[in-house]
Amino acid sequence: IRHVNQPFVAIDEEVAKLLELKAQLGDDGKTQFVLKTPKGTRDYNPKQMAIREKVFNTIIRCFKRHGAETIDTPVFELKETLTGKYGEDSKLIYDLKDQGGELLSLRYDLTVPFARYLAMNKITNIKRYHIAKVYRRDNPAMTRGRYREFYQCDFDIAGQYDAMIPDAECLKIVHEILNELDLGDFRIKVNDRRILDGMFAVCGVPDDKFRTICSTVDKLDKMSWEDVKKEMVNEKGLSEEAADQIGEYVSMQGGMDLAERLLQDHKMSQSKQACAGLSDIKLLFKYLQLFHVTDKVVFDLSLARGLDYYTGVIYEAVLTQAGTVSAANEAQNDTNAEESVSVGSVAGGGRYDGLVGMFDPKGRRVPCVGVSIGIERIFSIMEQKAEASPQKVRTTEVQIMVASAQKNLLEERLQLISELWNAGIKAELMYKKNPKLLSQLQYCEEAGIPLVAILGEQELKDGVVKLRVVATREEVDISRADLISEIKRRTEA
Amino acid sequence: IRHVNQPFVAIDEEVAKLLELKAQLGDDGKTQFVLKTPKGTRDYNPKQMAIREKVFNTIIRCFKRHGAETIDTPVFELKETLTGKYGEDSKLIYDLKDQGGELLSLRYDLTVPFARYLAMNKITNIKRYHIAKVYRRDNPAMTRGRYREFYQCDFDIAGQYDAMIPDAECLKIVHEILNELDLGDFRIKVNDRRILDGMFAVCGVPDDKFRTICSTVDKLDKMSWEDVKKEMVNEKGLSEEAADQIGEYVSMQGGMDLAERLLQDHKMSQSKQACAGLSDIKLLFKYLQLFHVTDKVVFDLSLARGLDYYTGVIYEAVLTQAGTVSAANEAQNDTNAEESVSVGSVAGGGRYDGLVGMFDPKGRRVPCVGVSIGIERIFSIMEQKAEASPQKVRTTEVQIMVASAQKNLLEERLQLISELWNAGIKAELMYKKNPKLLSQLQYCEEAGIPLVAILGEQELKDGVVKLRVVATREEVDISRADLISEIKRRTEA
Repeated sequence: IRHVNQPFVAIDEEVAKLLELKAQLGDDGKTQFVLKTPKGTRDYNPKQMAIREKVFNTIIRCFKRHGAETIDTPVFELKETLTGKYGEDSKLIYDLKDQGGELLSLRYDLTVPFARYLAMNKITNIKRYHIAKVYRRDNPAMTRGRYREFYQCDFDIAGQYDAMIPDAECLKIVHEILNELDLGDFRIKVNDRRILDGMFAVCGVPDDKFRTICSTVDKLDKMSWEDVKKEMVNEKGLSEEAADQIGEYVSMQGGMDLAERLLQDHKMSQSKQACAGLSDIKLLFKYLQLFHVTDKVVFDLSLARGLDYYTGVIYEAVLTQAGTVSAANEAQNDTNAEESVSVGSVAGGGRYDGLVGMFDPKGRRVPCVGVSIGIERIFSIMEQKAEASPQKVRTTEVQIMVASAQKNLLEERLQLISELWNAGIKAELMYKKNPKLLSQLQYCEEAGIPLVAILGEQELKDGVVKLRVVATREEVDISRADLISEIKRRTEA
Repeated sequence: IRHVNQPFVAIDEEVAKLLELKAQLGDDGKTQFVLKTPKGTRDYNPKQMAIREKVFNTIIRCFKRHGAETIDTPVFELKETLTGKYGEDSKLIYDLKDQGGELLSLRYDLTVPFARYLAMNKITNIKRYHIAKVYRRDNPAMTRGRYREFYQCDFDIAGQYDAMIPDAECLKIVHEILNELDLGDFRIKVNDRRILDGMFAVCGVPDDKFRTICSTVDKLDKMSWEDVKKEMVNEKGLSEEAADQIGEYVSMQGGMDLAERLLQDHKMSQSKQACAGLSDIKLLFKYLQLFHVTDKVVFDLSLARGLDYYTGVIYEAVLTQAGTVSAANEAQNDTNAEESVSVGSVAGGGRYDGLVGMFDPKGRRVPCVGVSIGIERIFSIMEQKAEASPQKVRTTEVQIMVASAQKNLLEERLQLISELWNAGIKAELMYKKNPKLLSQLQYCEEAGIPLVAILGEQELKDGVVKLRVVATREEVDISRADLISEIKRRTEA
């Protein structure tokens, strides 16, 4: 999930820097204190947190449905743990200052710490999810949901199993989550590193150029084939003939039928690697048919994915209706149009059978396959949906406010709310000795609190509480003994 | 929640360092890759995470019951945001390496980022909780639940309100959480910064020695009065007479009655500050009586708390039966006895009316009061309880395993489990084409999965599934149409 830089972004950032400098100089030119979060980071306000909690709950519920355990690892690792795992992207790793002691870096993803955890604890079988923040010193593009601090939601299956069964489950999980989050239509593109490598081999790409050509192919979702070809030939020194042959393959999309056709392809079938990948794609599609998810899955030979550690099947989910949401985003934030083109990719993953072995002193392999949900983009979309919706996002779950109609009833309010809290009712009161009834009712309207328990001299004498329904303004006297069950009945439906 | 260093700890750490160095040198003396987490940090395995989730749920449920919203802030802040907020402890802040750009530090607590958030967004009223990791380059004492990376669970009420109402709610929250977590008996000590300052004044402590004498008083929970007095007189240069007068006051403990008595005390009543604090303590106890929590709360003049930013009431909760748990811990980990003395403190907080103003360009004050739950110690205790209990901690919530009794039924298993997942049932299968029935059943025993759906040729012909109850080995045929409701009936009680 990476993007090419736009010239407009660079200009925007320069302008932002100048505005910031200006803000630091007060009216009299004196340096003032800067009140901000670090570049590329943000606070989450209560409304954003309410949306975030909803999205997390959906994702966690799915991971748990599939029997995953969860683990957590420290936010920083020994620097050497991350060294040599991310190729060119290593320059984006945040290092901690050497304050005496170990050299540390903030985690760049959750996959390398997972592999370190497995090797360190000699674990050969686990199905786990891990939801945590990761850190990249990248050029932030925050309107597009791209930050320097962001969440990853990873689900991985480690262990030596029969081919394609865990892999198919990962795709089923993506399908379930994207369905349940209701983000509009989506496609899950599938390919295999072995098919890519086999394709490069039979098209005449020299061995030492596989990786760099692969990363050029990876740009096909935001560059035309002509530009990709130019980069291959002019920048990477590939022959035009080889590039054209690659061009034919990477335009192919299909399902199990395409895998079968390519297994018969006179050129592709010369590569043992490609054949192994194609057979697995066939098997994968068979399992996906049993899961009834093939309507959204497409075998796409242009899918490459950047990371070095993949060894087998790879996949990426894209929203196909993302355009409309992005357009709304764009208008709101007044950024340049290019910014919002590819909010599309919302999940990705694949098989990485060699990574754990890099950590094991004896190089023991633990095959792994996993998927990462691109939660920040999903947040952005859900936030925009919430903005556009007439329904207000509630930031608390408070069921009732304990209010008073007259003065000098603070003690009675405290006593009643204490009873409610002890009974598990979510309740609030105003922290004033003598709040006005109107301001108490207004607070409920604003916060979306559905009920008010109103205390007055008469109610206290009668041993009742006046229960008011905020939406209808209906009021009814309820005996103190029945109050808790009445609140539950009305709010826990 | 700080502790004095023990000489034994220093020795232990030196030994650990040497052992680590030895581990880095392989058999042949060659440097090997070190597989570890950074000093003072740890991974959480699935069992620890299951316990952590349970504790968090209890705490979050309580915070939500009291109507709190939640926010999140970045893990790092601009270095200058943290500067000058922690006094001597500033040396424990983790800085990030200067890689070009802003100077950043990892957050040291959640209170300063909260104050920065309020000032930055000009928020004058909020009740929020924040659960997140904070970072301190301290000497770790991990057996005692003290780490360099650890969680804080903070609940704070910001806003200009009538005296002691939000303060009383904070104590009610501590009471609810410690009750519900069932950690044994506890006490909540209460005092007020203004009483401490007034006491120092009337005892003849020079103004410029208030803070340093206060931090010596703070050591009374782990040092005898004789040693505290020695430090005051010999190290801090206080007169013996002043020290003795302080000694009389700090031995006092009581409730509302003590506050009343001290308001009449000929010396204490000379301090306006002390009187304001004592009146508030009286009011606090009145509200706590209405909440029915005074049985656990004690007004204790020796409570000082380290942090500079407190301006009014302060409090700290201690487990009074912690000894037994600590003793178990000690025996298990074979550390020195001193290590386990004061696992006691599990929550603390107070009023800090000046902190937000430090961030506001115009110095506008936002009064705040809050409480922080010492979650790492609670984890340690819960983990030990779980170890000691015969009941196994489940790390997943899987309701059923989809198994087969014969070969060549993978496709049927995949089809069935897909139906279950789509119906919201938590289900697993083994990732093998032909797993043995016995190994499928054994997996259920180990993982605590209560049900097995067994498929065989006969069952498929009959349109049924053999439902096996793992605990009783009872087996019953259920029609495919009834399976989902039957699983829910048996596992969602």
